[in-house]
Amino acid sequence: MVDVSVNNGPTVSNPAFAERVAGSFARQAFMGFLDARLTAVEPGACTIELPFRPELSQQHGFFHGGVVGTLADNACGYASFTLAPADSSILTVEYKLNLMAPAAGETLVARGRVVRPGRTLIVAQADVSVRRGDGSEKPVATALATLMLMAGMADEPPAVPPKGGAAS
Amino acid sequence: MVDVSVNNGPTVSNPAFAERVAGSFARQAFMGFLDARLTAVEPGACTIELPFRPELSQQHGFFHGGVVGTLADNACGYASFTLAPADSSILTVEYKLNLMAPAAGETLVARGRVVRPGRTLIVAQADVSVRRGDGSEKPVATALATLMLMAGMADEPPAVPPKGGAAS
Amino acid sequence: MVDVSVNNGPTVSNPAFAERVAGSFARQAFMGFLDARLTAVEPGACTIELPFRPELSQQHGFFHGGVVGTLADNACGYASFTLAPADSSILTVEYKLNLMAPAAGETLVARGRVVRPGRTLIVAQADVSVRRGDGSEKPVATALATLMLMAGMADEPPAVPPKGGAAS
Amino acid sequence: MVDVSVNNGPTVSNPAFAERVAGSFARQAFMGFLDARLTAVEPGACTIELPFRPELSQQHGFFHGGVVGTLADNACGYASFTLAPADSSILTVEYKLNLMAPAAGETLVARGRVVRPGRTLIVAQADVSVRRGDGSEKPVATALATLMLMAGMADEPPAVPPKGGAAS
Repeated sequence: MVDVSVNNGPTVSNPAFAERVAGSFARQAFMGFLDARLTAVEPGACTIELPFRPELSQQHGFFHGGVVGTLADNACGYASFTLAPADSSILTVEYKLNLMAPAAGETLVARGRVVRPGRTLIVAQADVSVRRGDGSEKPVATALATLMLMAGMADEPPAVPPKGGAAS
Repeated sequence: MVDVSVNNGPTVSNPAFAERVAGSFARQAFMGFLDARLTAVEPGACTIELPFRPELSQQHGFFHGGVVGTLADNACGYASFTLAPADSSILTVEYKLNLMAPAAGETLVARGRVVRPGRTLIVAQADVSVRRGDGSEKPVATALATLMLMAGMADEPPAVPPKGGAAS
Repeated sequence: MVDVSVNNGPTVSNPAFAERVAGSFARQAFMGFLDARLTAVEPGACTIELPFRPELSQQHGFFHGGVVGTLADNACGYASFTLAPADSSILTVEYKLNLMAPAAGETLVARGRVVRPGRTLIVAQADVSVRRGDGSEKPVATALATLMLMAGMADEPPAVPPKGGAAS
Repeated sequence: MVDVSVNNGPTVSNPAFAERVAGSFARQAFMGFLDARLTAVEPGACTIELPFRPELSQQHGFFHGGVVGTLADNACGYASFTLAPADSSILTVEYKLNLMAPAAGETLVARGRVVRPGRTLIVAQADVSVRRGDGSEKPVATALATLMLMAGMADEPPAVPPKGGAAS
């Protein structure tokens, strides 16, 4: 499902980055609630897509700005997470989002990419567009974000001992 | 449900601002999907609250950053909308959000207020906190937003002629 | 001095855009005070450069962040101004600047470009780097800005009647 | 010159914070070049003022936006620096500035304050106004910034051995 390609861009410290990103995305219940999909992951970049449905709309029937912001934020986050060491997590410190046009279309597409991979702080950028039925895209928003690499903080839940498992 | 109070703040041009804000909020399907509630509206300010449930969480079980951003954006938007003339709408031009602490708590509370009410552009600010079971609050995010007053653009849907109504 | 080239990018409504941009830049006393130079102007884009000198530094001897922000802001502004009709001005509504590395180098270079040319609001972006003595460049900052087109607002000073001119 | 008062706000880890802030400010050559003055320092807050002169203006004769941004950035920085341990420095990670009105007046006044003092990251805010000859003030800009506490990084220059000093 997830298209994993490799470019000559930023250095990846965890070879299993794509699986780790997909796993974290799958654990974000809110992504499932929206029905958002991670459709591409590569070093320093990712794409998230979300089909329109009426529950996601604002008063004029377009994608709500909060949905646009959510996808932009997460696209920056997972683009950054591709570069994280296996024992580190990513937190969004802040982001700024410019909404440039009504998000009217059948699929919302957010593409994130790392602009500056620092040791502690990462600067990332996301472009959000809507794709229409004919496959054409229209830009609707752009975001600039700061993220923080949290060394030694697991993204994964703690391992749970099997129920009824004897420790002996 | 909505607590409408009046302070000595910014000038209100539409006396029915509270009803208009509540009506627009009710037409945002995404607010209903999240189960967000508009709990206070006053000139230049508003409060939006959202009870936690697992569907709204990120991978650690807290409110997802996208949910925090959505509430902050909307709190700025409806704070601004209270000052709009009856024939104008509000669009978010851009916002910047600082996520300051994990949004772990039972209710997410976003309070928006207008910082500078311009004729065309409005600057607004929102503080987002989580309220815990004991009623205490912890700040989790702050936002600074620019909004645009769209003169002559209805927020309301166009009136629909009664079904089967004869035009003659 | 100013390199005027034309690309297939955004629509220019004032054919004399390059002269108008250069004239406005020359009237900004602060640019002269810093000794900043407009080194390239094209439709929807421009470059501003500033040689280092000790007066422009922060406590570690690098370009001060305020100088970096000034150049980023102005690069966004004049990139936008290239697209303005002859009777319109440009105001910066807001910008967000990420400082990514110490601005240590001999020349500060800010390149602005329009991301979305709207009728009223323009979204622009600027990348700032330092150029070292060997001609190499290092990125130091990136900015995302919103600007407003002010129709009917002159950028030029009002014409002054000649001194001693008799009005009668 | 610097008014040092103490409130019940954020925890100060360096009792000599006011001297340290004043010393760092004095080492920023750009502040002297602009003729900016640090006029108040207290825990988590500071004020910077700058008298108008023509060199600081844009094309309409008001304070240049870059000057406004510089003061806002520095007010956030030194507000944060008041809370830094004696062996730590502060770096601006990013800031966002809303320019709300022309900065026409005799003195530019930037007041910064810490919104959230984290262990590594600090969120600060600055309000910028112009003070007119009659003492009245008009708000012109507001900023929201993220700063980073750099442990073990001196703000002070390295001690220089006395000229001609024998090492023996």
